Amino acid sequence: MTIVVDAGEMTEFLAQVFPQVEGMFTIDHMDEDVLVMRLHASDQHLRPGGTVSGPAMFSLADVGAYVATMARIGKEALAVTTNCSIDFMRKPRAGADVIGHFRMLKLGRALSVVDCLLYSEGEDAPVARANLTYSIPPKRA
Amino acid sequence: MTIVVDAGEMTEFLAQVFPQVEGMFTIDHMDEDVLVMRLHASDQHLRPGGTVSGPAMFSLADVGAYVATMARIGKEALAVTTNCSIDFMRKPRAGADVIGHFRMLKLGRALSVVDCLLYSEGEDAPVARANLTYSIPPKRA
Amino acid sequence: MTIVVDAGEMTEFLAQVFPQVEGMFTIDHMDEDVLVMRLHASDQHLRPGGTVSGPAMFSLADVGAYVATMARIGKEALAVTTNCSIDFMRKPRAGADVIGHFRMLKLGRALSVVDCLLYSEGEDAPVARANLTYSIPPKRA
Amino acid sequence: MTIVVDAGEMTEFLAQVFPQVEGMFTIDHMDEDVLVMRLHASDQHLRPGGTVSGPAMFSLADVGAYVATMARIGKEALAVTTNCSIDFMRKPRAGADVIGHFRMLKLGRALSVVDCLLYSEGEDAPVARANLTYSIPPKRA
Repeated sequence: MTIVVDAGEMTEFLAQVFPQVEGMFTIDHMDEDVLVMRLHASDQHLRPGGTVSGPAMFSLADVGAYVATMARIGKEALAVTTNCSIDFMRKPRAGADVIGHFRMLKLGRALSVVDCLLYSEGEDAPVARANLTYSIPPKRA
Repeated sequence: MTIVVDAGEMTEFLAQVFPQVEGMFTIDHMDEDVLVMRLHASDQHLRPGGTVSGPAMFSLADVGAYVATMARIGKEALAVTTNCSIDFMRKPRAGADVIGHFRMLKLGRALSVVDCLLYSEGEDAPVARANLTYSIPPKRA
Repeated sequence: MTIVVDAGEMTEFLAQVFPQVEGMFTIDHMDEDVLVMRLHASDQHLRPGGTVSGPAMFSLADVGAYVATMARIGKEALAVTTNCSIDFMRKPRAGADVIGHFRMLKLGRALSVVDCLLYSEGEDAPVARANLTYSIPPKRA
Repeated sequence: MTIVVDAGEMTEFLAQVFPQVEGMFTIDHMDEDVLVMRLHASDQHLRPGGTVSGPAMFSLADVGAYVATMARIGKEALAVTTNCSIDFMRKPRAGADVIGHFRMLKLGRALSVVDCLLYSEGEDAPVARANLTYSIPPKRA
């Protein structure tokens, strides 16, 4: 489960493949144990009351699991989300960024499984948890 | 499981509570058996290649389950997503709207459970399936 | 999604590969649209009060998704559950068999996705819903 | 999230409410951070090849989340599983007990959310992960 693409290179890669979410996410930290990724609170993702929306939290979970997977299998590979289960447990704090902590539970030849906990920045109790499965297609010859 | 808020009234209500997604969704049909709701393909929700993104499909699943629930418990009530499990099964067709078919499986006092299948418009095989649970807090006195 | 192993042959196959659940399940009906499979209520699967337990309902969901998959890919293939999400919605009726209705939503080369609704026999409202993903390993040479 | 029912008392309680699973599970350790619970490998839960079955692992996840919840809300309360999502990631080691590590992510008035990782005893990589939601009905007067 060695990291083969570092945080800087991954940030550039994300900007290329998902230009429409530019500025939405930042990789705060990445090593073999944990990826920490930030969703910047902004008007676009807010519900009335100033809290981050469920779909925006799903986006963070999805992109973090993608980053954790691609950092290990390499940028030239492919990976697509096949499943996500997400529990929304607490209302995010108004105006706060959401910070995701991601752990790779399995990296197989065909599937990766990633777990994450999402927090409003500065809070101890998670606002959401999610698990995601990515399918890794066989490399093209 | 009678519908107490019709499609027109629900559309106005959505525009009030989620102004940031205005123009993103349309209620195509709603009766006691099924809700059909449309996600308009637009640049904002597209992945490279012109297909609708996973987070945009999640948004459709989430808002459809909300509409199905609120249409039965009434607009003055509250409902928040507590859980969603979603499977992405096929790549959506480029440029096509995504159409969600929603069914209410349970409407209890405290929880509603909604199932949905998502299709690229005009296709027979679903692109995704999801189930969602909404928590319905007790009414305030 | 043609059925290549019929209900009689599948019943014999189940008895071979899962001898420890013999007598627990019956295939009531199987065609290309739907598989109907029965969990016989028995003391072993009952909670106090005479209702079928959650783990017994999970077993039905799991074996039904396996049957639906193997009936299409053939008995010589392999398939292992990778994910299940299950919602328990109502208390099963005391003493009643649980009947599962299974639909194949996707049968790809590497994954199958099956949806099911579980009912207490004779009731209209489902007691549970589940979705399952099976991984289909490449055939050995 | 204080523990109000200790491991010894909880073990007696489990034997009363689930007599049919007596001898199947043991509470190895319980404190405010983590519950460690063991599924004893036995013929009844084994697949051909001697590995613990998926339904048996589901049973461990379900009973552990129940124990973690009841230990905090008290034995006189009620709690029923409403949702479980489980990923099976690796084949359990033949003949080994399965050890579950459970953490309480949320304990609200109406819902608890518990996360768990399951391991074959003595192994570092988890065989499965699961998250469960329990519904806590209001106390009867």
